[in-house]
Amino acid sequence: MRYELYYWPTIQGRGEFIRLALEESGENYVDVARKPNKDGGVPAMLTFLDGARITRPPFAPPFLRSGKLVIGQTANILFYLGRRHGLAPSNEAGQLWAHQLQLTIADFVVEIHDTHHPISARLYFEDQRGEAKRRAADFLQYRAPKFLGYFEGLLEHGGSSYLLGRKLTYPDLSLFQVVAGMRYAFPEAMTRLEKKCPRCAALHERVAGRPRIAAYLASERRIAFNEQGIFRHYPELDAARASVGCL
Amino acid sequence: MRYELYYWPTIQGRGEFIRLALEESGENYVDVARKPNKDGGVPAMLTFLDGARITRPPFAPPFLRSGKLVIGQTANILFYLGRRHGLAPSNEAGQLWAHQLQLTIADFVVEIHDTHHPISARLYFEDQRGEAKRRAADFLQYRAPKFLGYFEGLLEHGGSSYLLGRKLTYPDLSLFQVVAGMRYAFPEAMTRLEKKCPRCAALHERVAGRPRIAAYLASERRIAFNEQGIFRHYPELDAARASVGCL
Repeated sequence: MRYELYYWPTIQGRGEFIRLALEESGENYVDVARKPNKDGGVPAMLTFLDGARITRPPFAPPFLRSGKLVIGQTANILFYLGRRHGLAPSNEAGQLWAHQLQLTIADFVVEIHDTHHPISARLYFEDQRGEAKRRAADFLQYRAPKFLGYFEGLLEHGGSSYLLGRKLTYPDLSLFQVVAGMRYAFPEAMTRLEKKCPRCAALHERVAGRPRIAAYLASERRIAFNEQGIFRHYPELDAARASVGCL
Repeated sequence: MRYELYYWPTIQGRGEFIRLALEESGENYVDVARKPNKDGGVPAMLTFLDGARITRPPFAPPFLRSGKLVIGQTANILFYLGRRHGLAPSNEAGQLWAHQLQLTIADFVVEIHDTHHPISARLYFEDQRGEAKRRAADFLQYRAPKFLGYFEGLLEHGGSSYLLGRKLTYPDLSLFQVVAGMRYAFPEAMTRLEKKCPRCAALHERVAGRPRIAAYLASERRIAFNEQGIFRHYPELDAARASVGCL
């Protein structure tokens, strides 16, 4: 069976967490909004969102079509794929734990996004630059260390290659993506932060080196980071910590 | 079996979504941090968060202890409780759909919280008042109508009493809480907004009238809304829409 992924075609965004799971599992999928022909493109995606075509419309992309199912919300899609394709434990307790970690990563991702859009996702970065500097300063000084420190602690206490043990699960793929994105968005700050989370950095390399992920990252299917996605490189935000020391 | 809920003792916050599910299901539970004796209070909660006591520590409250399981993340806890106590469908597709709606409500809740704390949860509201007015204006004009309109559309197309049909599921309890909280935080704006989402308002009344929920709301177990929680009443934010018309 072929999955259909629906997400914005020019950014990694939240869709990337799904792409990584589909790539690692080796499943056949089509990234619908990136298809140039008449059945693809953004219009094909938007028809699902107005609620007229299906009885269970998603609130926003990404969403995944799997046979008759249309599943929305990134963490929900990963929960579904994880159980089906060996990217999650087979027992309930392990599935809940993997999902709990994924939801914590989702919280982290919201805070990363809001460093450059603390007022409104509708407005340009330039229209909320001052607020963004303030938020980024707080984020880099307090929130990023707290999130990264949490995952570092799990890897340290677990003593294994991956978050749940010797076997990779979907939160590992997402943590890889967050480390990669943080390095892109905040190269200076992340250099400092990684000194305190070497295990997160090592997990990033481990995931990047897995054959299917390595092939994906080298392919045209991997969209480059850019300033329309979640992880955006604005040097003034990367440097925001020092300039707002009063926080 | 008795559940142990761990959450801050003086606010509804995210813990309230769990309390509502436990109350509706009639399950026996203890709200640990609200217990005054030596086994309770906030210290009893904090011992779980440092990672030394358990191998799967939550990132933050709320979390639920169920036998040997310690489950974190609000939506994850509801997923667990929903299946066990008839607050979710019994089939996989229905469970995924209920969870998808819950995660959409969780996104809504983050945006509600960030109206009064757009820069940092560490700082006082008074230290981010200007930014809060800007964010609240955008939220009330664009985001709140979009979220409420989404749920209104589901109720309209479904044509039933509850989001998933004739039977209440956990997202109904959470939508009740969001409507109640929005009315507390933004009484003027919500009066306007509810004109366009009468079905959400009716669902609020329907949930409030269920015997166990009505008993809970009238009890001392229901903490009153206040200015330390997610839903805070700051009149200047409620009025923010008109004053920032340029958005």
